[in-house]
Amino acid sequence: MTPIQFFDYAGIAVFAATGALSASRKQLDIVGFIFLAGITGIGGGTLRDVILNVPVFWIGNNIYVLTCVVTAVLVFFTAHLVESRWRLLLWLDALGLAAFAAMGAAKGLAITGSPVVAIITGMLTATFGGILRDVIAGEPSVLLRPEIYISAAGVGAAVYVLADRLLVAPQMAAILAFAAGFIVRGGALWFGW
Amino acid sequence: MTPIQFFDYAGIAVFAATGALSASRKQLDIVGFIFLAGITGIGGGTLRDVILNVPVFWIGNNIYVLTCVVTAVLVFFTAHLVESRWRLLLWLDALGLAAFAAMGAAKGLAITGSPVVAIITGMLTATFGGILRDVIAGEPSVLLRPEIYISAAGVGAAVYVLADRLLVAPQMAAILAFAAGFIVRGGALWFGW
Amino acid sequence: MTPIQFFDYAGIAVFAATGALSASRKQLDIVGFIFLAGITGIGGGTLRDVILNVPVFWIGNNIYVLTCVVTAVLVFFTAHLVESRWRLLLWLDALGLAAFAAMGAAKGLAITGSPVVAIITGMLTATFGGILRDVIAGEPSVLLRPEIYISAAGVGAAVYVLADRLLVAPQMAAILAFAAGFIVRGGALWFGW
Repeated sequence: MTPIQFFDYAGIAVFAATGALSASRKQLDIVGFIFLAGITGIGGGTLRDVILNVPVFWIGNNIYVLTCVVTAVLVFFTAHLVESRWRLLLWLDALGLAAFAAMGAAKGLAITGSPVVAIITGMLTATFGGILRDVIAGEPSVLLRPEIYISAAGVGAAVYVLADRLLVAPQMAAILAFAAGFIVRGGALWFGW
Repeated sequence: MTPIQFFDYAGIAVFAATGALSASRKQLDIVGFIFLAGITGIGGGTLRDVILNVPVFWIGNNIYVLTCVVTAVLVFFTAHLVESRWRLLLWLDALGLAAFAAMGAAKGLAITGSPVVAIITGMLTATFGGILRDVIAGEPSVLLRPEIYISAAGVGAAVYVLADRLLVAPQMAAILAFAAGFIVRGGALWFGW
Repeated sequence: MTPIQFFDYAGIAVFAATGALSASRKQLDIVGFIFLAGITGIGGGTLRDVILNVPVFWIGNNIYVLTCVVTAVLVFFTAHLVESRWRLLLWLDALGLAAFAAMGAAKGLAITGSPVVAIITGMLTATFGGILRDVIAGEPSVLLRPEIYISAAGVGAAVYVLADRLLVAPQMAAILAFAAGFIVRGGALWFGW
């Protein structure tokens, strides 16, 4: 499994978990957990692929959807064990944000060759699942929180594009982009930026 | 007209009616009725087709859009006659939910051959128009209501896939899926599941 | 630069400005300004192109995205100078609405040849960016305001289709449609229709 594939599945799982925790706060049933987990996990990448006019990534590979289902079921039966769900959700969300910014930029750049498009697809992939989650769950959108959020996705995506320009191998570029996005977002959470 | 075509138009009309009734509660003008009816009626199927990367169903056939327009105009001039609009909306919504779960699963299965994708497209087709309606009209999303809702769409879509596996003819499978979805959702409304 | 191209860029810029002013009211950082400006500026046209199954307009031409970024940065540094931001936003929105209704109808008609589809793509292009802006910023959707709004977009799109039927040249049809849409929306703002 390459780093990009790993980030891909890990990003799906952690975003799905944030959707499931959101369903938990709204006291939905298990199908509600799965639905919100799925929308959060694959929503950003679906928008990316629709905009890039390529086949939607989860259509030909059931692992993505099953990852969301399994994550949702796990969270459904363990959410009561998690002491501070909100805090956990924020850190999972930071991991997903960093992974999807790297992934989204990589795919956008590979398909269009345009750095501008790559930064946009990185930011959209990283934020749109969470936006859908918040809008559908009727919570204040993650965009409106005072801390640095989209900026972290933008930094991650920009680092990918820059690393690619500097002829860094795609897998290393993805790791650098993930690290950059997570450091910025994690710093915002930790230090209250 | 085959059962699938019938469910298709009927689903459009009843979902459009729920959009128009939502516009009525918000006291919009007639164009607002048409807009919200249209988004609710064709929103779910549009998302399904975009994800499946097939031509959007209403582009080549004006009957779908005209169905929404006629329904919206009818509701605009008769909404004051309906005693309990909310209750009516819930039952129309249940009919639309069941019809679109069957339709969406049928189209997803026909195009991708994947049961997992078929269940997702069934659920998305059945719920996304209503989600758009609620989000745009600023009402609590239908997903967050305590009763069984998405689960009914999931049951309907799963019944279609199962019937197809058991070599039931598509039209009979659609009828079974519609019945299953409507029984689950109607039961939730009637018995307060 | 043809009138259609001019309306295109002008519409992007003014809608982007409304997104940035919305970000200003929510006290977002500069990346939040850019993100909300971008979604408002290119959201409606993106939905139009995805529905029409043509390449998304900003993928191959960075000027659109850069227009949004420059507009957002300008608004970020000047928003405090604008006395009544809300009022300005409404009039910019009216310009964008009229421009996008003309543009959206022109593209829908050129690609499908269907007047019904053209009116829908005109209305969606004109309203969807603003709907996304309001939904994501957590403000009451522009659709729910008591004044005439979507109707103005519908009038503009219908005038384009009608002018095309009467063999008016596309560029003149676009000017007529823009004028019609802006007169209706501007009248609603000025006279409180």
